[in-house]
Amino acid sequence: MQKNFVLSTTDRHSKARRGQLTTAHGVIDTPAFMPIGTQGTVKAVTPRELRELDAQIILGNTYHLFVRPGLDVIKHFGGLHNFMNWDGPILTDSGGYQIFSLAKLRKITDGGVEFQNHIDGARAFISPEVAMEIQAALGGDIAMALDECVPYPCEYDYAAQSAELTTRWAKRCKEWKEQNAQRPTLNVQRPTDVVMSAVSAEFGADAPTAPELLFGIVQGATFEDLRKQSAQAIVDLDFDGYAIGGVSVGEPEEEMMRAVESAEPFLPRDKSRYAMGLGTPPQLLEMIARGMDMFDCVLPTRLARNGTAFTTTGTLNLKNAQFALDKSPIEENCACDACREFSRGYIRHLIKAEEILGLRLITLHNLHSYLNLMKRARTEIESGTFDQFRKAFVAGYKTRDPMMVE
Amino acid sequence: MQKNFVLSTTDRHSKARRGQLTTAHGVIDTPAFMPIGTQGTVKAVTPRELRELDAQIILGNTYHLFVRPGLDVIKHFGGLHNFMNWDGPILTDSGGYQIFSLAKLRKITDGGVEFQNHIDGARAFISPEVAMEIQAALGGDIAMALDECVPYPCEYDYAAQSAELTTRWAKRCKEWKEQNAQRPTLNVQRPTDVVMSAVSAEFGADAPTAPELLFGIVQGATFEDLRKQSAQAIVDLDFDGYAIGGVSVGEPEEEMMRAVESAEPFLPRDKSRYAMGLGTPPQLLEMIARGMDMFDCVLPTRLARNGTAFTTTGTLNLKNAQFALDKSPIEENCACDACREFSRGYIRHLIKAEEILGLRLITLHNLHSYLNLMKRARTEIESGTFDQFRKAFVAGYKTRDPMMVE
Repeated sequence: MQKNFVLSTTDRHSKARRGQLTTAHGVIDTPAFMPIGTQGTVKAVTPRELRELDAQIILGNTYHLFVRPGLDVIKHFGGLHNFMNWDGPILTDSGGYQIFSLAKLRKITDGGVEFQNHIDGARAFISPEVAMEIQAALGGDIAMALDECVPYPCEYDYAAQSAELTTRWAKRCKEWKEQNAQRPTLNVQRPTDVVMSAVSAEFGADAPTAPELLFGIVQGATFEDLRKQSAQAIVDLDFDGYAIGGVSVGEPEEEMMRAVESAEPFLPRDKSRYAMGLGTPPQLLEMIARGMDMFDCVLPTRLARNGTAFTTTGTLNLKNAQFALDKSPIEENCACDACREFSRGYIRHLIKAEEILGLRLITLHNLHSYLNLMKRARTEIESGTFDQFRKAFVAGYKTRDPMMVE
Repeated sequence: MQKNFVLSTTDRHSKARRGQLTTAHGVIDTPAFMPIGTQGTVKAVTPRELRELDAQIILGNTYHLFVRPGLDVIKHFGGLHNFMNWDGPILTDSGGYQIFSLAKLRKITDGGVEFQNHIDGARAFISPEVAMEIQAALGGDIAMALDECVPYPCEYDYAAQSAELTTRWAKRCKEWKEQNAQRPTLNVQRPTDVVMSAVSAEFGADAPTAPELLFGIVQGATFEDLRKQSAQAIVDLDFDGYAIGGVSVGEPEEEMMRAVESAEPFLPRDKSRYAMGLGTPPQLLEMIARGMDMFDCVLPTRLARNGTAFTTTGTLNLKNAQFALDKSPIEENCACDACREFSRGYIRHLIKAEEILGLRLITLHNLHSYLNLMKRARTEIESGTFDQFRKAFVAGYKTRDPMMVE
C-alpha cells in the first residue's frame, strides 16, 4: 500500500509534527484545521471562499447528510464533492457521534445502533458496514470507522465495554473496506432487518466503491489504561490514520490532555493523528505539542453566528457596546477580507441588527484565524521554534473560551 | 447648475429612455435597478459581490439607519459609504415611507411627523428639514424630499390634502438644500421642541453639508387629477430628479400603471425619473416603457430568503420537491456565480436545511437577474428594439408574482 502520510519535520522540544497527507483530491499540510460542513456547506461560506481561505480539507457530517437530503439525492449528484461543488479533500465522520448526541431512542447492540433521527423521527439502523456504505456513497476521501462516543462523566466499566465495542466495530469497518475496495457494495450483510431508508438496493451496479482512506478511532473516556488499550487494539487493526475520539465532550481541559497523552505513544509515527471535535486556539496548539496533526471544531463558525470573533489574544464579543464606535478591524494586521475591508463598529451594527453579513464576516475571520494558526504552527515547527511559539501564544491568550460540543 | 442627467436614446415605440445619471461616486446607466441596503447592507451580500454584480447604485433606508445604529455612529465613521465600505453611488430615501409603514404612534402635522420607532419605541420627530439633515449626515449622493405616502385604498379628500402637504414639505426640503449647500447645518430651525436623539447639536462645526442631488416625490394616490397636480407642483419646485411615490402599496397593477401614466407627461425629459418601491420584472419593463428610469425593490432579496428565484420566465420556489434531483442551474445560461457553480437540487437542499448559503446563492442570482434585466433593457433601447423585447418578455413570463410592500 502506498504511503498516504509523509512526516517532514518533528519538533525537538515537543511532539509537534509537520507532515503531508495525500488524498485523491489534494494534499493536506499538517497540522491542519478542517472547517465543518455539517449539512453539505460550511455554514454561510461558499467553496470559493474556502479556497480563498486556503482551507485544504473540509469535514462532512454523515449523520446529517444521511438524514437530509438523504443518500439517494447525494448519490444522484455523483457524491458530496459534486453536490456541494467542493473539489478539495473531504473527511466524513462515521455518523456515530451525532447518533449519540442528536438522535432519539437509540438502541446500541453489537450489531449497530438503531435510532430515530432528530428531523422527522424516521427510524434507521447503522451498523459498522452501513456506516462504511454511507460514507462510500458520500464519496469523501477519508472515512471514519463507526465508534461509540461515551459521555462525560462515564463509569469505568461502561467505558471499558464501550471501547471494546468500538474496537469490534472498527475491525468490521476495516473488513468492509477490504472487501469493497474497487467493488460494488451489494454484498453488504445487514445485521438486522430494520429498513435503511437511504442505503437501498437501488444502488445496483453503480454502487460506490470504498473510500480511499479509513481512519480508526481510539476511545476509552478519561481512563488512562483504557485509552492505552484502545489505542493498541485499534492500531493493531492497521488503519490509514488514527483519531482520538471522546474528547471535548465536557471534561475538564486537563482530562482532555491526559486522554490524548495516554493514547499518543501507541500511535505509529508514520500515520496522521486526528484529535476530534476540538478546540480553542490554545487547545489546538497544546494538541499539536502532544503529537496531533488534524483538527475539526464548530467553534469558529458557531461562535461567529453569536457575534464572537477569535483573535490571537482571545475572543471578542462584537455585540458589546464598547465596539460601537471602533474603527479598527476585528484584528490588526489580519489578512482576511473582513479585517481588510470592515470595522468592528460596522460588524457590531450588523450583528445587533441581525444582518446575515455580520455573521458572514465574523465566520470568514474566524476560519481565517484557525487556518492561519495552523499555517503559523507549520512554519514554527519547520523553524524549530514551535514550542516557544506555543508557550507565548497560550500565555498571551486572555479569554477563557467555551469548550463546545457538537 | 451642471446637468446631472444625460438622455442618450429615446425609444420610438414607447417612452423608454436610455440615459446616464452622474454623481460624485460614479455614473449610473439608466434604466437602473438599485439594490436595497436597508440597514447599511444589501441583505446577505458584500460590497465586493455588489461590484461583481455590476450594481451601479444602492439605496439606503434613512429611517432604519436613523433608528439603528443611529446617526452619531454613522457620522463617526464618516458617512454611510465609509461605514459599509461601498464606494459607489447611494440614494437615501427620506424615511417617510418607513415612518408610515413601520413606526408606531404617528402624528402628522404640517411641521412634520412625530413617531415611536419599531425597535425600542423611542420617540422622534422628523420634519422636512430634519429629513434633509439626516440624509446629509448619511452622506448619500441622492437625497429624497420628505413625503407622505398614503395607503391604498385612500379617500380622495385625504389624498388631495396629503399631496398638498407633500408639496409644502418638498418646498422646505429644497429650501433647506439651498441654504445648506456647502455649509454646516447648525442653522436648522426645529419646528417643535421634541428631542431628536440623533441629529444633535453635537454636529458642531463639522456638520455635514447638503446632499449633492435632491429628488422630489410626486404623490396623489390613484387619482389621475391629483397625480397631474402633484407632478406639476413638484416639477415647479425644480428638483434634480423626480420620483413617483405611493405606488406598489397594494393597488391593482392597472391602477399602478395609471398613476405613473398620469404623472409622467408633466415630468421634464432632461431629469431622471424614479418609480419607487417596485416591482416584478414585467412591471419594471412596463415602467420603463412608460418613461421611468430608476427602480428599487425588495423582491429579489426578500423572496430569496424564502427560497424564491427569479428567472426570465417567472419565479421558481426552490423549496418544491420537484427540484430535489434537479442538476440544472436556477436558470440556464445565467452568468451569475450561483448558476455557474451550483444546481437547483443543491440549493433546494440548502434552503430546506435552513442553511445561509442557500439564501445567499438565491440572493446573488436574483440581484443578477434584476440588474441584468436592466442591462438588457438598455441594450434593447439603444438598438431600437425595446418594445418588442418588452412584449415578448411579458408574454413569456409565466408566474403571477406578489406585489410586495416594504
